[in-house]
Amino acid sequence: MERTLEELARRVGGTVFGDGAVLIRGVCGLEDAGPDDITFLANPRYASKLAQTRAGAVVLSEQAPKPAIPAIVVKDPNFAFIAIAKEFAPAAPAAPASPGVHPSAVVAATARLGPGVSVGPNAVIEEEASIGEGTRVHALTYIGPHVKMGRECVIYPHVSIRERCVVGDRVIIHCGTAIGSDGFGYATLGDVHHKIPQNGIVEIEDDVEIGANCTLDRARLGRTLVKRGAKLDNMVHLAHNVVVGARALLAAQVGIAGSSKVGDGAMLGGQAGVGGHLDIGPGGMLTAQSGLGKDLPPGEMFAGSPAQPFMKTRRAEAALSRVPEMLNEIRSLRKKVEALEQRPTP
Amino acid sequence: MERTLEELARRVGGTVFGDGAVLIRGVCGLEDAGPDDITFLANPRYASKLAQTRAGAVVLSEQAPKPAIPAIVVKDPNFAFIAIAKEFAPAAPAAPASPGVHPSAVVAATARLGPGVSVGPNAVIEEEASIGEGTRVHALTYIGPHVKMGRECVIYPHVSIRERCVVGDRVIIHCGTAIGSDGFGYATLGDVHHKIPQNGIVEIEDDVEIGANCTLDRARLGRTLVKRGAKLDNMVHLAHNVVVGARALLAAQVGIAGSSKVGDGAMLGGQAGVGGHLDIGPGGMLTAQSGLGKDLPPGEMFAGSPAQPFMKTRRAEAALSRVPEMLNEIRSLRKKVEALEQRPTP
Amino acid sequence: MERTLEELARRVGGTVFGDGAVLIRGVCGLEDAGPDDITFLANPRYASKLAQTRAGAVVLSEQAPKPAIPAIVVKDPNFAFIAIAKEFAPAAPAAPASPGVHPSAVVAATARLGPGVSVGPNAVIEEEASIGEGTRVHALTYIGPHVKMGRECVIYPHVSIRERCVVGDRVIIHCGTAIGSDGFGYATLGDVHHKIPQNGIVEIEDDVEIGANCTLDRARLGRTLVKRGAKLDNMVHLAHNVVVGARALLAAQVGIAGSSKVGDGAMLGGQAGVGGHLDIGPGGMLTAQSGLGKDLPPGEMFAGSPAQPFMKTRRAEAALSRVPEMLNEIRSLRKKVEALEQRPTP
Repeated sequence: MERTLEELARRVGGTVFGDGAVLIRGVCGLEDAGPDDITFLANPRYASKLAQTRAGAVVLSEQAPKPAIPAIVVKDPNFAFIAIAKEFAPAAPAAPASPGVHPSAVVAATARLGPGVSVGPNAVIEEEASIGEGTRVHALTYIGPHVKMGRECVIYPHVSIRERCVVGDRVIIHCGTAIGSDGFGYATLGDVHHKIPQNGIVEIEDDVEIGANCTLDRARLGRTLVKRGAKLDNMVHLAHNVVVGARALLAAQVGIAGSSKVGDGAMLGGQAGVGGHLDIGPGGMLTAQSGLGKDLPPGEMFAGSPAQPFMKTRRAEAALSRVPEMLNEIRSLRKKVEALEQRPTP
Repeated sequence: MERTLEELARRVGGTVFGDGAVLIRGVCGLEDAGPDDITFLANPRYASKLAQTRAGAVVLSEQAPKPAIPAIVVKDPNFAFIAIAKEFAPAAPAAPASPGVHPSAVVAATARLGPGVSVGPNAVIEEEASIGEGTRVHALTYIGPHVKMGRECVIYPHVSIRERCVVGDRVIIHCGTAIGSDGFGYATLGDVHHKIPQNGIVEIEDDVEIGANCTLDRARLGRTLVKRGAKLDNMVHLAHNVVVGARALLAAQVGIAGSSKVGDGAMLGGQAGVGGHLDIGPGGMLTAQSGLGKDLPPGEMFAGSPAQPFMKTRRAEAALSRVPEMLNEIRSLRKKVEALEQRPTP
Repeated sequence: MERTLEELARRVGGTVFGDGAVLIRGVCGLEDAGPDDITFLANPRYASKLAQTRAGAVVLSEQAPKPAIPAIVVKDPNFAFIAIAKEFAPAAPAAPASPGVHPSAVVAATARLGPGVSVGPNAVIEEEASIGEGTRVHALTYIGPHVKMGRECVIYPHVSIRERCVVGDRVIIHCGTAIGSDGFGYATLGDVHHKIPQNGIVEIEDDVEIGANCTLDRARLGRTLVKRGAKLDNMVHLAHNVVVGARALLAAQVGIAGSSKVGDGAMLGGQAGVGGHLDIGPGGMLTAQSGLGKDLPPGEMFAGSPAQPFMKTRRAEAALSRVPEMLNEIRSLRKKVEALEQRPTP
C-alpha cells in the first residue's frame, strides 16, 4: 500500500510543506523510520531528533521548526498521526478476523450471540451469556454464565469474565485479564478465616479499555464499577466494590483496595497503591509508586508513600537532602556556643 | 426467594428488633440496599450511614445503636451476615455446575478423577494427574502431569498447575494463576546466565485460597509451600522455596523473594515486598508497600522501605516533616551566635 | 536412578573427598536433604548449616571447610550442581513430552511447523504462524497470526503471543504471559481518550527466559525488544517500545514505562519501577522497590523512590534516623544562646 504525501494531507486536513508527490508506504517513529515512512513530531522536546531522522516525511504542528524533509503541517500532530496510522494499519487484523463461531469453540445452547459476532478457536461461552453485535471474542477466552456483553467489543485470548458480569459497548479487554474473580474477604473466628460470599458483579461501562493480566474483583454485594471511557493499563488490580470514574487513567501495576472510589478524570501513576474505603476526587492525581492512606481532594496531586500533597512531599525530599549539612552546622554551632560560654562573664 | 426477618433471625441465632414479619428478598451493602434487602453494620465507624440506608432490615451487634428499621441483633454481625448471604446466594453457581467431564475437555487416559469431579469445557488434564472427590475444574484450566489434587477444590478458568505439584482439600484457586512455574535461578558464568534446573514442586495445603493472576514458583529442590488456611489475594508472587505459614494473609500484589518464610498468622499489606532468605515470625505484620530487608520478629509490625519497626518509621516520617522548620531555627541560631561573638570580650 | 559419588565427580570434573562409593539417588537443598541425596554449598555464608545436613554427600568449592560427609570438590559448585541436578532431572519432563500436534489443538492450514515441533492439547496456532524445529508449544497456548518463532523454544500453558511478534531460538516463556498486547497510548481530545493504534510488534531474541504472568506490550511503531540472553522474572511489565539489553536481569514485578531502555547486563530489583523515556546504562543497577525518574549512568547503582545514587540514598536514610536527636540538640542550643544573650554586655 502506498499514498502520496498530498493524499495523506488531504485525509487529515493538513497543509503540505515541500514535495507533496513523495510516496509513503508506512508509519514509523523518528528513530526507526526509513525513506518510505512518514513519522511525526508531537513533542517539541524531540525536535533535535528530527534533524537526524531518515524518514521520508513528517507530521508536525504549526509551531514546530520547519524540517529538512517534506511535511504535513497540522494543528494536532498526535491526532493527525492516528488517522494516518489507521490508513496503514495491517490489512490482517487480530484474529478472529471473520465473523462466525469457530467449530472448536464451545458455546452453550442458551447463549445469545448478536449478528456479526465472532468467536475464536477453543473459546468457551457458558449458558445464558449474551454478546452484542459485532463483538469479537478471541481464541481460548472464557465468558461465564449470564454474562452480558455489548456491541463491538474486543476480548483477547485468555480473558476470563466470570458469571453475571456486565460489559458495555466498544470495550477492549487484553490477554489474560480476569473479570469477576472473588473479592478478598474473610471473617476470622478464632483460628479460621471464613470466606465471606462475594455475590456481586463487575460492571464495565462503554468505551473502557483494560490492559493485559489485570484483575477486577466482583463486589461482595452490588458491583465493582468501571465507568465510561476509563482506561486501565496492564496488571491493574481492583478489589471488590471499587469504583473507577469516567475517563480515569490508571497506569500499569496500580492496586486499589476494597470499596475505594476513583473520581472522574483522575490519573494514577504506575505501581501506585490506594488503601481501602478512600476517595480520590474528580481530576485527582497520584504519582507513580505513591501509597494513598487518606482521601485525595478533587484536582489535587499527591505523591509519596504515605502520600501527601505533591509540593509537601517534594519539600520533604529536598529537606532530607540537607540533613547531613544540618548535622555539621549544629556541631559547629555547639562548639561556638561552648566557646562563648567559656568567656569570662563581665 | 424470600424469607421473613423472623426466619432469618432463627437461622443465625439472633434476636429480632422491631417487625419480624418484614419480607426480605436479598442482601446488600448499606449504601445500595433497597426496601427488600437486609444489610449489615459490622463496623461502628459506619453507624452514621445506617440512618440513611433504604434497606428493609439490618444485622447488627448488641453494642450498635438501635436503628430506625427492623433488625437482627447478634454477637458477630459479620458472621451472621455470611450465613444470611449464603441463604440468598445465586441459585446458578459458577460453572461447571454439574458433575462430569465436558466432552471438549482433554483428560489423559491415565488421569484419575474421584467421584463427583466436574471438568469444564476445553480443560486439559495430563497423564497420571489425580483429582479428589467433588473437585470442580473449570473451563480452559491446565492440570499438568502427576499433579495431585484433593477433594472439593474449585479451580477457576485459565489456572495452570504444572507437573507434580500437590494441592490439598477445599483449595480455591482463581482465574489465571500459575502454580509451579520455574523459579528464577541462574548461575552466571562469564557472559552467560545458565539456567539452574527447578526440579522441586509447589505444595498447597488444605483450605488455602489463592487469588487471580498469582504466580507460585516451584522449588529449585524440595517444595514451595503454602500452609493450611493461608489466604492470598490477587497478583501475589511467591518465588522458589518460599514458605507461607498457616492462616497467613497476603494482600494483593505482594512479592516474596526466594527461600523466605512467612510465619503462621502473619499479615502482609498490599504491594509489600520481602527480600530473599528472610524470616517473618509468627503473627508478624508488614504494612502496605513496605520493603523488608531483614528478619521481622514474631508479632511485630514493620513499615517503610527499607522496613523498620512501625513506630520508628512513623517517628522518622514525623521528624522529616519538621526539617524545614529546623533549617529556619538553625539559621536564626547562627545569626544570634554571630552577634554574641561580635560582643566585646570583657 | 542411582549414581556413585565417584561417577558424579567424573561427570563434573571434580575431586572426591571421602568415600566415592556412596550411592546417590537425588539432589536436594542443605536443609531438606536425606542420606540418599547429594546437596551443595555454593555460598560460604551457609557453611554452618553443612554441619547439620542429613545429606549423603555435598558439592563444594576448594575454599570451603572440609565436611564430615563425602564430597565432590570443584571450582564452581553452582555450575557442577546444575550438571548433577540435570542427571537426576525427572524422567517425565513437562508435557507435551512427545513431538506432534495433539488432535485437539487448532492449527491453521497456513501455519508452518518445523520438524519435531510439539503442540499440546487445545492450543491454538493461527494462520501464517511459523514455529521452528523442536519447539514445544504447551496446552492451551495462543500463537497469533504471522508470529515467527525459532527453534527449541518452550512455551508454557496460557501464554498468548499476539499477531506478528517475533521470538528467537531457545526462548522459554512461562504460564500466563502476554506477548504483544497493545501499548497504553491515547490522544486526549476534549473529554475523550482516543486510542493510538499500536501497530508495532514485540521481538524477543535468542536465549531469553520470561517468567509467568508477564506483560510485554507491542510497540506503537517499530518494536518492543528483549535482547539476547536477558532473563525476566514473573509479573514483569514492559510498556510499548521498551528495550531490554542483552543479559539484563529483571526481578519479579518490575514495571518499565514506555520507550525506556535498559542497558546490557543491567539488573533491576523486585518491584522496581522505571519512568518513561529513560536510559539505564549498561551494567546499571536499580535496587528493589526503587522508582527511577531520571537516567541511570552505566555501571552505577541507584536506590530509593525517587531513585538516587545508592550511597546518597543510604546517607539520607541514616541522616533521617538522626533527626529526632537533632531536634533535641537545637532546643538545647537555643536555651544556651538565650542564656548567653541574657548576660550583661561588658
